[in-house]
Amino acid sequence: MSKTNAGNFFEDFVLGQVIEHATPRTVTEGDRALYGAIYPTRFAVPSSAQFAASLGFDRHPVEELVGFHIAFGKTVPDISLNAVANLGYAECRFQHPVRPGDTISTRSEVIGLKENSNGRSGVVWVRSTATNHRGAVVLDWARWVMVHKRDVDAPAPEIVVPDLAAVVAPEDLVVPHGISFAAYDFGAAGEPHRLGDYEVGERIDHVDGVTLTDAEHMLATRLWQNTAKVHFNTDARPDGRRLVYGGHIISLARALSFNGLANAQLIAAINAGSHVSPAFAGDTVHAWSEVLDRVELEAPGVGALRLRLVATKGHDESMTLRQVGGDNDGKYADGVLLDLDYWALIPR
Amino acid sequence: MSKTNAGNFFEDFVLGQVIEHATPRTVTEGDRALYGAIYPTRFAVPSSAQFAASLGFDRHPVEELVGFHIAFGKTVPDISLNAVANLGYAECRFQHPVRPGDTISTRSEVIGLKENSNGRSGVVWVRSTATNHRGAVVLDWARWVMVHKRDVDAPAPEIVVPDLAAVVAPEDLVVPHGISFAAYDFGAAGEPHRLGDYEVGERIDHVDGVTLTDAEHMLATRLWQNTAKVHFNTDARPDGRRLVYGGHIISLARALSFNGLANAQLIAAINAGSHVSPAFAGDTVHAWSEVLDRVELEAPGVGALRLRLVATKGHDESMTLRQVGGDNDGKYADGVLLDLDYWALIPR
Amino acid sequence: MSKTNAGNFFEDFVLGQVIEHATPRTVTEGDRALYGAIYPTRFAVPSSAQFAASLGFDRHPVEELVGFHIAFGKTVPDISLNAVANLGYAECRFQHPVRPGDTISTRSEVIGLKENSNGRSGVVWVRSTATNHRGAVVLDWARWVMVHKRDVDAPAPEIVVPDLAAVVAPEDLVVPHGISFAAYDFGAAGEPHRLGDYEVGERIDHVDGVTLTDAEHMLATRLWQNTAKVHFNTDARPDGRRLVYGGHIISLARALSFNGLANAQLIAAINAGSHVSPAFAGDTVHAWSEVLDRVELEAPGVGALRLRLVATKGHDESMTLRQVGGDNDGKYADGVLLDLDYWALIPR
Repeated sequence: MSKTNAGNFFEDFVLGQVIEHATPRTVTEGDRALYGAIYPTRFAVPSSAQFAASLGFDRHPVEELVGFHIAFGKTVPDISLNAVANLGYAECRFQHPVRPGDTISTRSEVIGLKENSNGRSGVVWVRSTATNHRGAVVLDWARWVMVHKRDVDAPAPEIVVPDLAAVVAPEDLVVPHGISFAAYDFGAAGEPHRLGDYEVGERIDHVDGVTLTDAEHMLATRLWQNTAKVHFNTDARPDGRRLVYGGHIISLARALSFNGLANAQLIAAINAGSHVSPAFAGDTVHAWSEVLDRVELEAPGVGALRLRLVATKGHDESMTLRQVGGDNDGKYADGVLLDLDYWALIPR
Repeated sequence: MSKTNAGNFFEDFVLGQVIEHATPRTVTEGDRALYGAIYPTRFAVPSSAQFAASLGFDRHPVEELVGFHIAFGKTVPDISLNAVANLGYAECRFQHPVRPGDTISTRSEVIGLKENSNGRSGVVWVRSTATNHRGAVVLDWARWVMVHKRDVDAPAPEIVVPDLAAVVAPEDLVVPHGISFAAYDFGAAGEPHRLGDYEVGERIDHVDGVTLTDAEHMLATRLWQNTAKVHFNTDARPDGRRLVYGGHIISLARALSFNGLANAQLIAAINAGSHVSPAFAGDTVHAWSEVLDRVELEAPGVGALRLRLVATKGHDESMTLRQVGGDNDGKYADGVLLDLDYWALIPR
Repeated sequence: MSKTNAGNFFEDFVLGQVIEHATPRTVTEGDRALYGAIYPTRFAVPSSAQFAASLGFDRHPVEELVGFHIAFGKTVPDISLNAVANLGYAECRFQHPVRPGDTISTRSEVIGLKENSNGRSGVVWVRSTATNHRGAVVLDWARWVMVHKRDVDAPAPEIVVPDLAAVVAPEDLVVPHGISFAAYDFGAAGEPHRLGDYEVGERIDHVDGVTLTDAEHMLATRLWQNTAKVHFNTDARPDGRRLVYGGHIISLARALSFNGLANAQLIAAINAGSHVSPAFAGDTVHAWSEVLDRVELEAPGVGALRLRLVATKGHDESMTLRQVGGDNDGKYADGVLLDLDYWALIPR
């Protein structure tokens, strides 16, 4: 057994510790194709090399979430193999496009620790940074997970809870270098709506639904080299069901949001995200969005929408699951799968 | 709701109207791999870059149906989102190979309109044209669909029914520029049979069968950015089953036809096609072909077979479902899924 | 029927006969992505172009088993379409890396024949050689299968049983040209263990399990253009289940073995392999390995481990299914799926 990775337990983490995660991963055109086969995405930038070039991309980027999932997957064996729960994300900024040929590596720094009062587990905060093979930061994010202790008698570390922003400030959003939306082709993109057409508080029902299968979520989760057992092994949970990777629901909901948000082309930041309840094969996933904020950025023609993306099991036509800005107080209605708060770049 | 695409209804279509469909799509080597994972295809041209080069292809083309599905998928949000039924295809000509790196766009022109006598729906004929990013026409085809009216009181348009050819004339078939079958390697292609070995009226049982799964047809249908709800959402039909995209059956039957038609390398035209009955996960699909015509073309060594490709649920060893040339009079035996009439290029 | 391939029967094989298998197949980056979606592989060489380059690979190779499956798939229509059973492999040597852009062809020579005493079938031994489009041998292997006779009255051929090595000798292992493990990055590869850290007789439980689905094994098997009916058609077996391609279990077990053997980067040879019992959707596959031998090779920093890789249905924590070196005497415990004996290259 000694040769296999048992993962880190709560007492293995030390404040300031830096972990270089293994198995850098080269992105290919195969990833683009698989992403499009697994999620019903039609955003024009990842779909069309010509559309991307028309906005100033020098090479054809893949969807931002491809980079996110790969970077996240790398952290699982070291950070969350013994996780009780993924508690949250914050300050996730997409800083550089990911293109086929780029090799992604991830490292994490432990930025917070707090043992639980039961003495059997604790919360670990890490800031993870993904870079490409030229050393450019692709994205970084903070994440906190509750992790088991190996030894309940291990001493509790000093409590350090990092101060994380509730929202990435608009001035901290990164527009990829050289990008302009000044000559944006709304016809090719699929919808006419620009920044000013969206009102804060507006909600958009994305209408379509997709019923999950085990084969598809496993293909996706493996593609990101995410090794968490519960996604693959029917013996890993008492109910014999394979838990769908939370990121699968993020990508599915984002793809569904094309219908109504086709011009919210690029994800610039993820402010927060909660995997409210588990999803399984047979569930039919729908999504709706709420506009939380809108700002103009300096890059030519570029604005940003702050969006709340809610994925539900079954079609939630009411779109009124809880008050905006409410905290995660357990008041989510049954059937809510995901509550994600992010910034998207859109033509103004 | 106003931001999402509700699709066009019958009264939204106007004779002569041109619709530029959204989200151009760049083809990649990932599409080739996925096509080969989803369908049991072994045709030597898409399988081997060297075989393709030996026939004169300057770059390695993907299967013709990859172009067809992508081009067709683009039309769904505008043409058939509110379709009651896909009634037929005609005059589909493959004019230029599709290669990884090509970006496909599609536009459609409304060429016919006829309201149904019930006043609640009508038939729309469109001619759709797919071009690559250099402006070359990749394929074009006519298609007619029955579409719901939004408002039953909307006035009926003047009846215009286009005159469509029952068969693409051999002189209108396009052999890709520079292609010669003069040095064709039958050993590498897998079978010794050439044009003259096939007799008009001959029927070929393709023997093998494939049992459908939901995951696979959804992966395929998404890959083509086809958004029709019935393929993905178990709530979209009263029986809770996901309807398999008709094009999935076309590709599956075509791939099965390798066994007996390995040298029918390239699809040059689709004359007609009927999705006779719906297919679902669990159905086992078989196929047989009938030779309808054979002609010699001008390109070196190139001939064309006109083939009827019939896909059935279960193995139809009789291969005698209806008379050749019979019209779609509802006399198909139970279990017929597809009746496709096409031209394939084959060495003579 | 005469146009379709009925496969060869026992009496069709002649000693010394050479069969050039059809449909050469070009490998692409799409194959890499699909391999990573279907199997939980994380080996650093196929995962990262930079890691591969750091070892001296001039282009980014795909996993060795991609080449194996493609090469093997080519032989199925000619060798094993009428097989009663795949009896074994031997002397499989991986001689040249497979890279996207390489086109693989396979030919086989009949090297042994022995009719069974019942007169209804016989054993055929073939040596198959896969080459790339530049003529370099990618891999070769011997295989023997039991094949039906078409005509029980066909005369029995002279018995020739080839002399095959039980193990590929270390001096016959091929290290790809120019490869050095002298500057191997253990951190990037995921584990610190080198050749000397493994003891002969040591057993490693790879811990993780994957539950099989029909969609996934069919996608994989089609990708390799393997046409054996039992993998795809629920009507092909009395129990209505689709038999999982044996090579799917090899790839799955090899991928699971990353956990504990992350530095066993490259498969150099397969000495022997038995598909002990059939696998089906719903089975959860685990794997364990035993170190059978370890040797130092001449290439800089390169050693080789001879490993026994055992795949089981369910988790076999005892890892003591039979004595090492025992012959295939039917004494495998229930639940053993695969018993594979191979050489892997590892830093020393």
